[in-house]
Amino acid sequence: MQYQEGMLRDGALQGKTIIITGGGTGLGKSMATYFLKLGANVVICSRRIEVLETTAKELTELTGGNILPIACDVRKTEQIENVLTQAIEKFGKVDGLVNNSAGNFISPTERLSYKAVDVVVDIVLRGTYYFTLALGKYWIENKIKGNVLNISTTYAWTGSGWVVPSAMAKAGVLAMTKSLAFEWADHGIRLNAIAPGPFPTKGAWDRLFPEELAKKFSFENRIPLQRVGDHQELTNLAAYLISDFSAYMTGEVITLDGGEVLAAGQFNFLKDVSEEQWDDIEEQIKNANRSSKKSE
Amino acid sequence: MQYQEGMLRDGALQGKTIIITGGGTGLGKSMATYFLKLGANVVICSRRIEVLETTAKELTELTGGNILPIACDVRKTEQIENVLTQAIEKFGKVDGLVNNSAGNFISPTERLSYKAVDVVVDIVLRGTYYFTLALGKYWIENKIKGNVLNISTTYAWTGSGWVVPSAMAKAGVLAMTKSLAFEWADHGIRLNAIAPGPFPTKGAWDRLFPEELAKKFSFENRIPLQRVGDHQELTNLAAYLISDFSAYMTGEVITLDGGEVLAAGQFNFLKDVSEEQWDDIEEQIKNANRSSKKSE
Amino acid sequence: MQYQEGMLRDGALQGKTIIITGGGTGLGKSMATYFLKLGANVVICSRRIEVLETTAKELTELTGGNILPIACDVRKTEQIENVLTQAIEKFGKVDGLVNNSAGNFISPTERLSYKAVDVVVDIVLRGTYYFTLALGKYWIENKIKGNVLNISTTYAWTGSGWVVPSAMAKAGVLAMTKSLAFEWADHGIRLNAIAPGPFPTKGAWDRLFPEELAKKFSFENRIPLQRVGDHQELTNLAAYLISDFSAYMTGEVITLDGGEVLAAGQFNFLKDVSEEQWDDIEEQIKNANRSSKKSE
Amino acid sequence: MQYQEGMLRDGALQGKTIIITGGGTGLGKSMATYFLKLGANVVICSRRIEVLETTAKELTELTGGNILPIACDVRKTEQIENVLTQAIEKFGKVDGLVNNSAGNFISPTERLSYKAVDVVVDIVLRGTYYFTLALGKYWIENKIKGNVLNISTTYAWTGSGWVVPSAMAKAGVLAMTKSLAFEWADHGIRLNAIAPGPFPTKGAWDRLFPEELAKKFSFENRIPLQRVGDHQELTNLAAYLISDFSAYMTGEVITLDGGEVLAAGQFNFLKDVSEEQWDDIEEQIKNANRSSKKSE
Repeated sequence: MQYQEGMLRDGALQGKTIIITGGGTGLGKSMATYFLKLGANVVICSRRIEVLETTAKELTELTGGNILPIACDVRKTEQIENVLTQAIEKFGKVDGLVNNSAGNFISPTERLSYKAVDVVVDIVLRGTYYFTLALGKYWIENKIKGNVLNISTTYAWTGSGWVVPSAMAKAGVLAMTKSLAFEWADHGIRLNAIAPGPFPTKGAWDRLFPEELAKKFSFENRIPLQRVGDHQELTNLAAYLISDFSAYMTGEVITLDGGEVLAAGQFNFLKDVSEEQWDDIEEQIKNANRSSKKSE
Repeated sequence: MQYQEGMLRDGALQGKTIIITGGGTGLGKSMATYFLKLGANVVICSRRIEVLETTAKELTELTGGNILPIACDVRKTEQIENVLTQAIEKFGKVDGLVNNSAGNFISPTERLSYKAVDVVVDIVLRGTYYFTLALGKYWIENKIKGNVLNISTTYAWTGSGWVVPSAMAKAGVLAMTKSLAFEWADHGIRLNAIAPGPFPTKGAWDRLFPEELAKKFSFENRIPLQRVGDHQELTNLAAYLISDFSAYMTGEVITLDGGEVLAAGQFNFLKDVSEEQWDDIEEQIKNANRSSKKSE
Repeated sequence: MQYQEGMLRDGALQGKTIIITGGGTGLGKSMATYFLKLGANVVICSRRIEVLETTAKELTELTGGNILPIACDVRKTEQIENVLTQAIEKFGKVDGLVNNSAGNFISPTERLSYKAVDVVVDIVLRGTYYFTLALGKYWIENKIKGNVLNISTTYAWTGSGWVVPSAMAKAGVLAMTKSLAFEWADHGIRLNAIAPGPFPTKGAWDRLFPEELAKKFSFENRIPLQRVGDHQELTNLAAYLISDFSAYMTGEVITLDGGEVLAAGQFNFLKDVSEEQWDDIEEQIKNANRSSKKSE
Repeated sequence: MQYQEGMLRDGALQGKTIIITGGGTGLGKSMATYFLKLGANVVICSRRIEVLETTAKELTELTGGNILPIACDVRKTEQIENVLTQAIEKFGKVDGLVNNSAGNFISPTERLSYKAVDVVVDIVLRGTYYFTLALGKYWIENKIKGNVLNISTTYAWTGSGWVVPSAMAKAGVLAMTKSLAFEWADHGIRLNAIAPGPFPTKGAWDRLFPEELAKKFSFENRIPLQRVGDHQELTNLAAYLISDFSAYMTGEVITLDGGEVLAAGQFNFLKDVSEEQWDDIEEQIKNANRSSKKSE
């Protein structure tokens, strides 16, 4: 399928240096791979340095690109500033930031301790604003037209039960995206976001969805387009947003979810009506209207 | 239940004259009843004058209020202007307009003729902007601080399959609400909207939902608050919006739907997980995290 | 003006006990006053016990109602649980919670320290979810159909520069509102929010807006309805939402802002065009169309 | 600038046949040009066949691609069906539809005749649903996974004064986009939209904005990113959406407007505060807080 190939012309990210938080695994790793192929220098950071180093080695061999792994807990501002310092030292400057680190779990909210909520909010919201604040100060001081891409979710604005800590944190990130997009536009800094539907990654999904549940609530059945997403589809969109091809876009959040979020439509439950039933309904409605007209 | 009683203090609409389109039956009739009880003069109009006259007689007896029935096809501008003229003649002036007339049917869109789509769009969108334009010109010319209440739907902004003509028309009405709220604020004219969930009325619902379907897709099960709405609940909100108590609100659309529209949340399908299953999941997640940490 | 009077029928909150965070001053105090008048028992809490006690004394004299002041830092879970314990002890149970505590300041974001951002997020977001979690657990355990009202802002979803910490936190609160509205609907618990425009209170506004700035950016000029809001207008809406009259509403956020948020409309800048200029424009457009048709 | 170049890899639209309404001038012509370069067959249609033929000749010479001009008034269903018939005859099938035809003018709404409103609604909304319905029936019958791209506006959901007919019509188109995206997903049909900010084209803008007004309300000053958009930026995004690279996206509307729509943020008016004033404000706020703490 065409969508499983890279979309952007060669060299689209040549000369850019991009930091990806949580870039060692999952979608972060996929973005790192494609950005490297398009010519970018990539910095990946997360708490687990061994994972990062394995990824860095693998991607260097695969793409021949420049990748720098640095250990960082996004909740620690001094570790964030260390990432920035090292990135500048190695690549001269930093152009882009992908806030991709996340933490999530499913649970009835009333079963959660205060602390369990705090942990998710701290990683997702606090980690994102710490990192964005650090980069923003650096960009404004050095007159660099920086670019931020936040990995959000559709439930950042619809809300969603059973993932409330994540919903609150991602909503905060979304508001930051729109707020700073306006405030920092004068400095030439852009911020955009992607709200992805299901793009499964082995490890992450196993932890989020126990097997029993995954079977019961098959994504293929619930997604209007009847499949989960392919990582390359998401990285094509991410590369567009982190490149200068999207130079006129800021404060925008783009949903790429196979139509999942559309389910809210009040009569969308009618998708389970068969063609034969529709034939019957058509007949019944005609009759009802006819008799209603007669009685007028 | 308290919500089945009138909320507003007595006389809250004293001295107001309000036109309600489609006011002879259903929610329109319920609004007319409550507005009369609160002291308003009410004009009801629709194509079926006998229905209107029966309603007028009934409500006069019930409330002792002033109600004027006038035949009007909202797609005919000269009939709309006739309503306005007669209303002014009888009550001296008109203060409020409730655009409540609607037409809807459920069908796969590809089964519809061009003309079938036109009919719904003409009644819902064209009828609403004709009526609003007529009143707006009258209010601006006569320096009256008019007030418009549009009955919208949640799918005006979420969209919904199988009711596409109505979705397009109601979305147009919503955009009109927000647009004119800004543009005509200088003239002291306000426009707001309500997006109701299921508030069943005998006739209308029978025509919309054949019995077979009504059973299959029980609203009680699909609505988070597990019941349909009571007409008085909607009329309490409508009376607030058409009164001066909402004088600082304009361009707003208020959803009153038992939480129905919230279904879009990505993980809301988890509501079907039982407490016992949650116990298991909690255990599994703990184990997965434990083994994942070990393997790091 | 009618909107400066109480809207709800007498006794509308009889028998309800409602906690209002930050209830000692400003809008919180206004809500407390009106809720007391409508028959509710009210608990007010904030960090400053002397302020609370003064308010409690004043409102007891004014309304004759039952009001309980308790010191509480919303960032401390044990203090929150103490509020709940004392409220139950005094009034038997708690029915409603108004999350009204806030902290805000205006500043270019790049001037902020990490810690300055944390302070606002902790009070507004953390304080709100701590309090809501505490009440939710209590309500579910005791099968009480609780009701939460969150004081939000329009920039929770539009975003806004120069108040970024507050924007992130309020967006998180909004997502919590919608998420738990769905998740906890089964327990009969409702959550709604109000997004107020400018409802000035002496103290709060002086701190937020230095005099010089307040003059320069007059709210009266920027608000479509050309005035700031009256506290009673907001408390009317708040009383509706915290009462059972809104029993069919959940997950909703209602904007009451004089039309302020509508400014986003792409052509709304045309409001500065005068009637004379519109005459000229009309003429020019006619001519342009005429000559464009000729050239076709 | 990189954004003025084509983003997609060569041949990205090879083998696709795409109809663009209003494709003879402006953004429609720019999309036709880029789609041809990427290998698509393109059908352009509008009322003015001479304009279409001139464009077709010019683009054939420029790109060497296949382009078919057909006269069509989008308000006439038989003319729409003729476009479809001829396109299939020439290219074998049709894969994509870009609803780009529009009509707009600026005016205080109370100055408009009923008919003036109808004209815009008929071209923009009726024309779009007629064309989409025709293609949808064809795609479903022939099991083709069709793709629709609608050119919308940001005021489709924010509303906007002084362009009310267009706002209503574009809102209807947006609702159709989301509604059919869900309903027709089962058939593999996708629908998405772009909401562009200012992308000036000589003819269109002269008609919309008389010179005097264009000077007074300079777009460069009002757009956060401080410039108008370049046509290639919009066509890059359009090509992505009409290609299979966006195969997992449906029901989405993407804003590309230099941040224009973000203006709604409640405190965004503070962008006019200078750095020196911020120094003063910082000082004042510190003092106010200090004295407020003292008085507690």
